[in-house]
Amino acid sequence: MTPSELRIRALAGFPPVRPGDDPGELVADAIARARESLRDGDVLVVAQKIVSKAEGRIVRLADVAPSPRAIELAARTEKDPRAVEAILRESVEVVRAAPGVLIVETRHGIVLANAGADMSNVEHDEEDDHLLLLPEDPDASADRLRAALVARASGGGGPRIGVIVADSVGRAWREGTVGLAIGVSGLPARLDRRGEPDLFGRALHVTEVGIADSIASAASIVMGEGAEGRPAALVRGLSFEDRSEAERAGRARDLVRPRQRDLFR
Amino acid sequence: MTPSELRIRALAGFPPVRPGDDPGELVADAIARARESLRDGDVLVVAQKIVSKAEGRIVRLADVAPSPRAIELAARTEKDPRAVEAILRESVEVVRAAPGVLIVETRHGIVLANAGADMSNVEHDEEDDHLLLLPEDPDASADRLRAALVARASGGGGPRIGVIVADSVGRAWREGTVGLAIGVSGLPARLDRRGEPDLFGRALHVTEVGIADSIASAASIVMGEGAEGRPAALVRGLSFEDRSEAERAGRARDLVRPRQRDLFR
Repeated sequence: MTPSELRIRALAGFPPVRPGDDPGELVADAIARARESLRDGDVLVVAQKIVSKAEGRIVRLADVAPSPRAIELAARTEKDPRAVEAILRESVEVVRAAPGVLIVETRHGIVLANAGADMSNVEHDEEDDHLLLLPEDPDASADRLRAALVARASGGGGPRIGVIVADSVGRAWREGTVGLAIGVSGLPARLDRRGEPDLFGRALHVTEVGIADSIASAASIVMGEGAEGRPAALVRGLSFEDRSEAERAGRARDLVRPRQRDLFR
Repeated sequence: MTPSELRIRALAGFPPVRPGDDPGELVADAIARARESLRDGDVLVVAQKIVSKAEGRIVRLADVAPSPRAIELAARTEKDPRAVEAILRESVEVVRAAPGVLIVETRHGIVLANAGADMSNVEHDEEDDHLLLLPEDPDASADRLRAALVARASGGGGPRIGVIVADSVGRAWREGTVGLAIGVSGLPARLDRRGEPDLFGRALHVTEVGIADSIASAASIVMGEGAEGRPAALVRGLSFEDRSEAERAGRARDLVRPRQRDLFR
């Protein structure tokens, strides 16, 4: 059922995140600080950055030896060859390279500038730059987050919640970033609308809805871009009880268009 | 300021929309039915379909004589040559054509399958098919909607609200549709974050946020895909008071990436 009302609340007051921290504990603490308790249907959207930091996905550029290919691509894209090397190690294909732009397909199948690697909001000093990579397996990160939140929410049973690990990304043809679901656990990543009739009984022309990406974009409105210190949001009002078990067990990979159906490589 | 909480409520109970209807009246009636009254910062997201229907943007395929180019493209895309002709008349460029797929840039600068034209949720009989086109000028449609809603909300002054005319669209690389702002009035289409420092004082790597597209996607979660009869949503909790007058007067065109910066044509 399409919900008739959604409430989206930013979760704030996170401490600085260090490698080895438990993102589930951090988010659970933030929920407690907000005096919320999790209910069936709640979806937690968590910024990739805090998950990556907790998982220690930080590369010290001084430790990276760029390959000849990275040096060539760095010249073409006007980027640091060490950063390009770190990005290539996360990638299976370079989709576009131009001055200032390096768009790749990551190991997760996501087409992203710089493989989602980021130099902002990583603690740094000028002489020792770091790059923050995407989580190794964001769907697995979402699973662990969900398990930790369910365990902490209740002694047994626990609410049926979903977790999205989200990033802010650029797009083809459009200016401005939107949210993207790079990890999904406990909710559909996309909703199949095939065969559902429209108001006049005709089968719907639109086939599938990218629900997890839409939820990630909705949450991005309250999470901001990192400067605000709000790396998570609680989305309340969704229900996927009418959906099949398979659909409810969505994965971010479900949102990746298969290469053979992709006209924009 | 990034809002810390958003509430998104579907507006329902719309009558069938006919050419000549006033979309502002329809949405104002729906707001009244929901026992809401508009406040400063509210954003109304309205489905392109009801705006297009009210504006009479309906093409009877039987009236369309396909050009040789439309006939050729129809063969390549396995589409009705009359529909392809109607789509080409809305377009400035064919971006991709393949079996089942016709992606164009519309006159508004939006890269869209079938120029956003739709055969679902248009009343039809089997022998007389119709195509519903995008509004002629969706930003102007949003302006008119906003003026009508402000006028109806109050005798004088009126709340500072925003209006987004939204469509559900497919994307490059990703499965599943998301919401897109095709018309914008009274709010920023994108937010400039250039120069805002992150938590560690470094200038943000991400430059701009596609806020109107994110709001359209957020609203799409409660609006569904037409089968539910919820062609509008009220988004409450936003505030753009800290933004410049120019940014607050956003247009959907602000979200179109200039061709010279577009690597995916």
